[in-house]
Amino acid sequence: MNLNPIQLFDTESSTFTYILTAPGSNQAVIIDPVDHQLERDLRHLERLGLQLALVLETHAHADHVTSAGRLRALTGAQAAVPSGCGIAPAELQLNDGDVLRFGYAEEIRVLHTPGHTAGSMSYLWRGNVFTGDTLLIDGCGRTDFQSGSSDALYDSVTGKLFALPDDTRVWPAHDYKGQAVSTIGWEKRHNARLANRSREDFRILMSELKLAKPKLIDIAVPANQNLGLPHGA
Amino acid sequence: MNLNPIQLFDTESSTFTYILTAPGSNQAVIIDPVDHQLERDLRHLERLGLQLALVLETHAHADHVTSAGRLRALTGAQAAVPSGCGIAPAELQLNDGDVLRFGYAEEIRVLHTPGHTAGSMSYLWRGNVFTGDTLLIDGCGRTDFQSGSSDALYDSVTGKLFALPDDTRVWPAHDYKGQAVSTIGWEKRHNARLANRSREDFRILMSELKLAKPKLIDIAVPANQNLGLPHGA
Repeated sequence: MNLNPIQLFDTESSTFTYILTAPGSNQAVIIDPVDHQLERDLRHLERLGLQLALVLETHAHADHVTSAGRLRALTGAQAAVPSGCGIAPAELQLNDGDVLRFGYAEEIRVLHTPGHTAGSMSYLWRGNVFTGDTLLIDGCGRTDFQSGSSDALYDSVTGKLFALPDDTRVWPAHDYKGQAVSTIGWEKRHNARLANRSREDFRILMSELKLAKPKLIDIAVPANQNLGLPHGA
Repeated sequence: MNLNPIQLFDTESSTFTYILTAPGSNQAVIIDPVDHQLERDLRHLERLGLQLALVLETHAHADHVTSAGRLRALTGAQAAVPSGCGIAPAELQLNDGDVLRFGYAEEIRVLHTPGHTAGSMSYLWRGNVFTGDTLLIDGCGRTDFQSGSSDALYDSVTGKLFALPDDTRVWPAHDYKGQAVSTIGWEKRHNARLANRSREDFRILMSELKLAKPKLIDIAVPANQNLGLPHGA
């Protein structure tokens, strides 16, 4: 049965944070929390009477800093991260095919979807896929830095994500156009970058984007590889 | 079983719009859609493969104009509104205790919660209550115009909404502080305006707010009483 997550939005970085809750338990999971939204997120956990079991990261973000380390310290949650992202302090280093458990009988399946970064993961739960910066609504993450690869992203999206059932809901890490959720079926048919496009076309498209370097990258990536905690702390 | 709605936010009016979806059917319900977000909302219905069964209004809003009339025309949904709000063109005029149905076996219970306006309704569905401007997160709607009454709001919140189970999730029509969802239990214990406050204290508090008149009220209320459609259309 599809259970929608609670979706929270950070206007500064256009980042979505997700809180997963499920029947029969007050355990919850948070995905991609943002540093300056720590107070907001703690308030939601408090108001909803939730106990945080897991803090999940889809990758080491370049555009904002995570609050994962502080959330872990304040709630007793475990930090779970892609094994290939260099996020050393996290206790759970995830690999493709791993299954995370929380609540009464909830399962989150880990899907390695490299391309935006080499380590990027997507997470499958109850008919939802949390795609990080791999697949966005009608778009995709950039592939031109941080071990990105347009070939790898093409394979991740067309080979792995588009193989999920059409009605799987797609919850991305960002949206810049006021949208919130999509489905695999719609993206497969209409995604402006990836629907009905050859690998070669996609490679050219991505190589010609000429995007500016993210302002925060030199701070954010090392910070996120330490779960957002000060180095040496 | 608690099923979270899909929550969408309009930054201009700080209004939440909700899409309710449920297992076993592609029928959906939308609550409090905003005129200039029509395109966003239609895109969500399209991407998620949803057929809109009902457009619900919690009251005749004073701060933004609804897209209910246009959504109805474009999707074939029925418009369901509080009977006491003067929204004449809606086919379903709701009264306290009514039950709306959609999808396979979904039920939405109608709760008359006057105070922000005399007609205001809240809607109960699957462990969630959509409280309109009656109960906000750590606050409440104003009661100084449009047939508002602090006495009525006090009774609606403390007598009706606070009587719901503590873990009922509260999804308001607005938030101005970056919050998204609360619970009856938390609001009962902590709501800055209504928790542990006497009726007389609340009456004084509300009478001393001295809020400015909403900029759009003279346009929005008559427009909303026509489901956002041009008069004479």
